[in-house]
Amino acid sequence: MRKESRWIRWIKWIVIVTVLFVLGFCIGWFAKPSNTQNHTDSSHYLKDFLEEMKADKIREHLRKFTQLPHLAGTEQNLKYAEQIMKEWQMFGIDSVEMVPYDVLLSYPNESQPNYISIVDHLGNEVFNTSLAEPVPQGYEDISNIVPPYSAFSAKGQPEGDLVYVNYGRTEDFSQLQREMGINVTGKIVIVRYGKIFRGNKVKNAVLAGAKGIIMFSDPADYWADGIQPYPDGWNLPGRGVQRGNVLNLNGAGDPLTPGYPAKEYTYRFSPEDGVGLPNIPVHPIGFHDAFRLLNNMGGEIPPNNWKGALNVSYRIGPGFTDEFKSQKVRMNIHTNNQVTRIYNVIGKIRGAQEPDRYVILGGHRDAWVFGGIDPMSGAAVVHETVRSAGRLLSTGWRPRRTIIFASWDAEEFGLLGSTEWAEDNARLLQERAVAYINADSAIEGMYTLRVDCTPSLHTLVYDITKQIPSPEEGEEGVSLYKSWHKRDNWTNDRDAPRISKLGSGSDFEAYFIRLGIASGRARYTKNTKTERYSSYPVYHSVYETFEIVEKFYDPSFKRLQAVAQVRGALIFLLADSQLLPLDVNEYADSLRKYAQSIAQLAQKNLVEMETYKVSFDSLFSAVENFTVAARDFHQRLQTLNKADPLQLRIMNDQLMYLERAFIDPLGLPGRPFYRHVIFAPSSHNKYAGESFPGIYDALFDIQNSADPAKAWEEVKCQISIAAFTVHAAAMTLTPPA
Amino acid sequence: MRKESRWIRWIKWIVIVTVLFVLGFCIGWFAKPSNTQNHTDSSHYLKDFLEEMKADKIREHLRKFTQLPHLAGTEQNLKYAEQIMKEWQMFGIDSVEMVPYDVLLSYPNESQPNYISIVDHLGNEVFNTSLAEPVPQGYEDISNIVPPYSAFSAKGQPEGDLVYVNYGRTEDFSQLQREMGINVTGKIVIVRYGKIFRGNKVKNAVLAGAKGIIMFSDPADYWADGIQPYPDGWNLPGRGVQRGNVLNLNGAGDPLTPGYPAKEYTYRFSPEDGVGLPNIPVHPIGFHDAFRLLNNMGGEIPPNNWKGALNVSYRIGPGFTDEFKSQKVRMNIHTNNQVTRIYNVIGKIRGAQEPDRYVILGGHRDAWVFGGIDPMSGAAVVHETVRSAGRLLSTGWRPRRTIIFASWDAEEFGLLGSTEWAEDNARLLQERAVAYINADSAIEGMYTLRVDCTPSLHTLVYDITKQIPSPEEGEEGVSLYKSWHKRDNWTNDRDAPRISKLGSGSDFEAYFIRLGIASGRARYTKNTKTERYSSYPVYHSVYETFEIVEKFYDPSFKRLQAVAQVRGALIFLLADSQLLPLDVNEYADSLRKYAQSIAQLAQKNLVEMETYKVSFDSLFSAVENFTVAARDFHQRLQTLNKADPLQLRIMNDQLMYLERAFIDPLGLPGRPFYRHVIFAPSSHNKYAGESFPGIYDALFDIQNSADPAKAWEEVKCQISIAAFTVHAAAMTLTPPA
Repeated sequence: MRKESRWIRWIKWIVIVTVLFVLGFCIGWFAKPSNTQNHTDSSHYLKDFLEEMKADKIREHLRKFTQLPHLAGTEQNLKYAEQIMKEWQMFGIDSVEMVPYDVLLSYPNESQPNYISIVDHLGNEVFNTSLAEPVPQGYEDISNIVPPYSAFSAKGQPEGDLVYVNYGRTEDFSQLQREMGINVTGKIVIVRYGKIFRGNKVKNAVLAGAKGIIMFSDPADYWADGIQPYPDGWNLPGRGVQRGNVLNLNGAGDPLTPGYPAKEYTYRFSPEDGVGLPNIPVHPIGFHDAFRLLNNMGGEIPPNNWKGALNVSYRIGPGFTDEFKSQKVRMNIHTNNQVTRIYNVIGKIRGAQEPDRYVILGGHRDAWVFGGIDPMSGAAVVHETVRSAGRLLSTGWRPRRTIIFASWDAEEFGLLGSTEWAEDNARLLQERAVAYINADSAIEGMYTLRVDCTPSLHTLVYDITKQIPSPEEGEEGVSLYKSWHKRDNWTNDRDAPRISKLGSGSDFEAYFIRLGIASGRARYTKNTKTERYSSYPVYHSVYETFEIVEKFYDPSFKRLQAVAQVRGALIFLLADSQLLPLDVNEYADSLRKYAQSIAQLAQKNLVEMETYKVSFDSLFSAVENFTVAARDFHQRLQTLNKADPLQLRIMNDQLMYLERAFIDPLGLPGRPFYRHVIFAPSSHNKYAGESFPGIYDALFDIQNSADPAKAWEEVKCQISIAAFTVHAAAMTLTPPA
Repeated sequence: MRKESRWIRWIKWIVIVTVLFVLGFCIGWFAKPSNTQNHTDSSHYLKDFLEEMKADKIREHLRKFTQLPHLAGTEQNLKYAEQIMKEWQMFGIDSVEMVPYDVLLSYPNESQPNYISIVDHLGNEVFNTSLAEPVPQGYEDISNIVPPYSAFSAKGQPEGDLVYVNYGRTEDFSQLQREMGINVTGKIVIVRYGKIFRGNKVKNAVLAGAKGIIMFSDPADYWADGIQPYPDGWNLPGRGVQRGNVLNLNGAGDPLTPGYPAKEYTYRFSPEDGVGLPNIPVHPIGFHDAFRLLNNMGGEIPPNNWKGALNVSYRIGPGFTDEFKSQKVRMNIHTNNQVTRIYNVIGKIRGAQEPDRYVILGGHRDAWVFGGIDPMSGAAVVHETVRSAGRLLSTGWRPRRTIIFASWDAEEFGLLGSTEWAEDNARLLQERAVAYINADSAIEGMYTLRVDCTPSLHTLVYDITKQIPSPEEGEEGVSLYKSWHKRDNWTNDRDAPRISKLGSGSDFEAYFIRLGIASGRARYTKNTKTERYSSYPVYHSVYETFEIVEKFYDPSFKRLQAVAQVRGALIFLLADSQLLPLDVNEYADSLRKYAQSIAQLAQKNLVEMETYKVSFDSLFSAVENFTVAARDFHQRLQTLNKADPLQLRIMNDQLMYLERAFIDPLGLPGRPFYRHVIFAPSSHNKYAGESFPGIYDALFDIQNSADPAKAWEEVKCQISIAAFTVHAAAMTLTPPA
């Protein structure tokens, strides 16, 4: 008995000891923090973040920042910068700083106004274009409204005969010269705004030998049927004029410091060596004045597609009809270029686990006048995003990666603020930037969502818009995705909302096309199938006010709220997801489409392709290779051990650096700062995004080349570069060793 | 009592429970594996790795791979590649592959030999230079010894008067033209080898208008006092000749595919558009033949520093003395350029924790003839390193990071194999390469160690050499560091063995100067204070045999073993250390020295500097900024939690990307593939490394500029770029958010 009881006692003891030990062990095991933050489902944070963004707040922000004109380089734009800095600080993000650069800007001469005259044979000015737009109601006492002008125009008072060249596209000038036999050397050309970036029109005019160029807004391009001019509707009044810069920077940023940030110690080119500056006078006018210049023009009547909607015959010239033959046109341009200080506002939320990974939301602040749409509808959205992020931070949230908010300056003068900052931080961005989301105007129409982004963001955009409600009246309970899909289906081949390629013309340019950072933009837009005008009618005029948004574009501010939520969800998920939400298969699909479409474009010249032995086989084979690599990569993602922080980081790095792999440090031909081999604007139009732009431009140039053998060699060279680049990008997706 | 005993019992119980719990907790805590591999002290692995490298094995490897000539593009060089691949596989590394490219090479025409004649007034050849070097003993039956030639020479048979231009440097031509008043247009120039890269001599001759150029090895530059010519000693016989390419590639790689790998589908320039090809005939001769050409030359006697050690007066010409005036010199050059397949061998050891971080050990395999010194003394060392690494792998070791071994092809034709592979893998290397260690000739003298490397490797080189024994007889128990230090102290300012800047002329070029990967090289060298000849006397001649190493340079093969251990320890520690062994403070110190020295160089022109307002302040301030950032970075390293794999990775990334930060994608002026702002060869000499090469070249050009105002603007521009780059590099060292 005694022995037994001892045994039992021992057993009891052992049991107790074991239980206690195991208990302790387990508690010890689980008490120890894992190195991998178990970043639990962040979806409730996302929900809070999106719900915190309020339409009324966006309204407030927009009201606040559109009271006064705030052109880049002016005191008022600095004041707004200071206010934004202060408010972002109050919103509670980690840091906010003001980052200045000294860049070349361009302003009208205050004592010598710019205008265009018709002069008689004695040199008397018998007609002068208006010096300013009529100021909208409620803004009569506002000073510092810059009159319409073409920023960076050369100075001068050229006098001569007018020639009308439609939109001033390469093909327009070529048609004029070859088919109509008109030489514009020594003439002043007049072109209508639209179709391509105005800087390209100016470049074409210079190449053709013109000594001046006038640009006007034709109602065919800036007037919506059945809509009243502002303030009774949102159409462009006859005396409204589109301002804008006329540079050909091709991504260089500040014309005097290409490739380097315009700091105090930076070496500056002399103004005559500045990048992209036109050497002829340029001036914009409204259709009211354009009518007067076009009305008496002589010469041939052009083909129908050259005719706008003014009640004139759009004769080409040169010069006026016989009756007015002795009259000439004189431009009076006194605009000055001057190095001026600009200010970016940069706010940051430090990433908790990966502070060295950056997700950027950036948009510009400078406006031609009030910026009711461009850019403040976008800036108000960024402001609300920062406010909401600050709120979330105060509840204990902190994103995995660093978020950077930017209020860029001098976008209107050539994307200067964003490009200088990109140049300043190129090394950091190259190694560390995950994505750049652009935040220019959040609205340009009242119809549906518009998204342009890199293919790897397609899936994320779809996922996000399924979680955001439609802002349209009568669509309560309908997702933005569904509303968008209904209004703008991609193609017959793809049943999903349309997403377009990124072009240029806004601040993502340096981030996407120069540095190869995955980028995207989202805004509310018009119905492109039925509304044929360019951008929106009052674009870059004094009539871009707070009221035009409040009365017409988005009275409830729910559309802007929806855009805020799209942009906000993008940066949230890019910054906070454990695995980067980038879809490599989508890139493969897009590359295939692009390769097919560029090959098809070349097929127009089947005979020459045979003669010069041009083949797209290497490109197709590279795309095939990429497709396999992408599929394999996503397969490996399935088995990734996300608890291993290094394995996770390695695959995230592959995702992040994929976009970078499309960058060629040698740049596209003649455009050292456009380095993205898959996406860039064509040389012939800065706005629109082309895929395989090197090949596209080489094919475009064939039409105008005097030496076809040489031109086709260039096509072959560009195909080879594209094929190599796609192969190289595929390599970045394979297992690293 | 009873109560008390109960209390005591309880207390006992509580104590026991607590103790057991705590014990369990602690065991649980420590039993749980940390995510960071506790990469325990790897020093015993390093010791094993170094001790496994045997002098005898290196001897064997060298013997094996120097039996036959193996010029790039020949069958024999492919055979050696296959053998190396097979042996590396047997050594047990993870993978070995052969990577081919099709590049432009250049060979003598087999049916029309190259030579130079003296012709009389009837055009009869009264003297011809030799067609080949006398073959060394033991190699009489060997075929495929390529005769001495200048690879990539233009074809042609120019005839004319000789002009002697010393070393053919920029300053020599300038002295010739300005001080001596001799114009070489239409003349054939003869220059001695040495001081600068032969391609620069050819470029200078072309710029000066010469129609041909002859290069010879003067005993003053290729003869060591008191040494017999080979085979009785290691001096260059009178009929020995230095082969070599005469390109001016500036880092472009294959002349027909600059910027892109020369694959099958790659677009190729037509030969006349090839990069860096000279357009005049070029030919090398030994001093035996040179004597004949120089002996009867007329014209002025040059200054003493133009005189070599031949028994001639080194008259400048043009042409011969009166007696021989009717005689001319004729070059007969029939060398052909042709696109040829070359083969790199690439071996890999996959990294255990960070497979996406690469440490590269690469050196070339192709040789002008046998390659006894250049490159096989280096290739044998790589071979032994791979063997030792394979052995270590079999004992269970695996490095933290991936190690890549490379046997490059066609280095002698312009660093082609290594550059094409760098172009092929540019994206991967840019994102992932930690360091590149070069392995060209491991020996060029019998005196001490020579190291050229980026400043951040200084400390590692010192640490390593302290752990390696001196190979010198009588220095048993002395470290390599001590032996080296004793023989070659840096300066009065720095009491440590001398380490030099990297220049070019070997395969690290694309990795360091184009891609910005931290790089270094190590070899055994001569006593530069007493041995004044260039490189080593038999350089690029047929006399570079196995025997010259075995009999003279390293009979015990212990010097090569020491070099193997230095190179091996470098890659071992770079690949296996938890924290990258890169010293950022050393970079700061070097930058300061370089800034001071370039500013001092400019001070020679104090008056102009004042006139044109040239200041180095911005550069000094950038260096100061960098210094502070480097110091702070090293301070933060002290508190780094190495157990946190993400924190560790983030700081390692900052260390890795520092070298990358000095890369300017725009390249140095006129040299798009030289992108390193701190280190590159001067435009005037590919071999030597300059610091701040952009500024250096701008200052150099001032002497020859017709427009000093413009030349000084270029200096200012280059100072600004350098200052910006140093600032930008400093930013990469600050906390990432």
